[in-house]
Amino acid sequence: MSKRVGVILSGCGFLDGSEVHEAVLALMHLDRHGVEIVCMAPDGNQADVVDHVAKKPVEGASRSMLTEAARIARGRIQPLGEVDPATLDAVVMPGGFGAAKNLSNFAVRGAAGSANPEVARVLKTMHAAGKPIGAICIAPAVVALVLGKEHPRLTIGNDAGTAKAIEQLGAAHVDCAVTDCVIDADRRIVTTPAYMYDARVHEVAQGIGKLVDAVVGMMGAAS
Amino acid sequence: MSKRVGVILSGCGFLDGSEVHEAVLALMHLDRHGVEIVCMAPDGNQADVVDHVAKKPVEGASRSMLTEAARIARGRIQPLGEVDPATLDAVVMPGGFGAAKNLSNFAVRGAAGSANPEVARVLKTMHAAGKPIGAICIAPAVVALVLGKEHPRLTIGNDAGTAKAIEQLGAAHVDCAVTDCVIDADRRIVTTPAYMYDARVHEVAQGIGKLVDAVVGMMGAAS
Repeated sequence: MSKRVGVILSGCGFLDGSEVHEAVLALMHLDRHGVEIVCMAPDGNQADVVDHVAKKPVEGASRSMLTEAARIARGRIQPLGEVDPATLDAVVMPGGFGAAKNLSNFAVRGAAGSANPEVARVLKTMHAAGKPIGAICIAPAVVALVLGKEHPRLTIGNDAGTAKAIEQLGAAHVDCAVTDCVIDADRRIVTTPAYMYDARVHEVAQGIGKLVDAVVGMMGAAS
Repeated sequence: MSKRVGVILSGCGFLDGSEVHEAVLALMHLDRHGVEIVCMAPDGNQADVVDHVAKKPVEGASRSMLTEAARIARGRIQPLGEVDPATLDAVVMPGGFGAAKNLSNFAVRGAAGSANPEVARVLKTMHAAGKPIGAICIAPAVVALVLGKEHPRLTIGNDAGTAKAIEQLGAAHVDCAVTDCVIDADRRIVTTPAYMYDARVHEVAQGIGKLVDAVVGMMGAAS
């Protein structure tokens, strides 16, 4: 039976949901390994809706994380609250502001923040079972909020302020190029900075490719 | 000076705008060649807004093609009506229902339909200047609406009904696998079926990669 990898989405757009390139490139690289992909998102509204041309919030607008994420998932998506982590062999979490505003409140509260309870449940359960977690861009901050006390080695690129917040949560931050990833083999957590840099999409694709290779490799080892 | 390639988008989501995977994979492959990418979309509303979980139109909702497409373009996008095709060396048009509902009315009118006037202007001007055009998934139907009288060789995969409509417009349809593309070298038009099939994303990536290689190759030859 093929391995199943959950991909945690938070909307569709880097300013108010999942970063679209990171999400699609994660799906492409996972599919390259022939794993079954299970897209999922919390069944609630985004923290806000941002006009991606004006780069400003749209007053009074609301959009569902799940329904918008379905645009990336081509309609094949499950409410995160209905997902049994026991059915998954790994999870991957793309970035975008949705990770810091919808999957957690890191964007507002930093190291004093917390993750969405459903996200926390899935990450804690996966980690306790020794299953690998991949986190892209700002999503490692969500990992730090949930698993910082395990002292994982994480990267969010080279942004000093964000790195400091992650270290306050107990994680060790490691600088990393966009085309590379940081592998914490002991804790089975893999991170890559992606659009934490003003990067080119084929460079982002390389970093995410390495992250997926590492996550899939650990998954194989866990079987 | 680096070559500039326009990417014509129509929203963000396969049921009411640009197919997200096809758009991102086109950007990734274009970036691999080091070309400058100019994302663009008509500055008007989508034909409809579709809930991508329920797969049904949302009554009373409206969204801008340009603003939604900016989610794929990470905010770097131009209104199509303001683009001078003389500044571009090629154009690529991803698919999704947006190509058949927003960039044209092919979804409703088939071979009796027409393309959005701004799209028609850009495609006609590029073609008249001998510059290559790449079209993905259902977007070749838009090419057929605008340039069918030039008798291009196109593919939309192997869907008999759509192929027939395209042939009524003067094009020759060629069956093609998802991992491949059809190159009309004389007319400098390249097409790949992508999600005209119920395909896997890494297969779609292969077909789009070949399309981009062919478009970029023709562009070099035109310089």
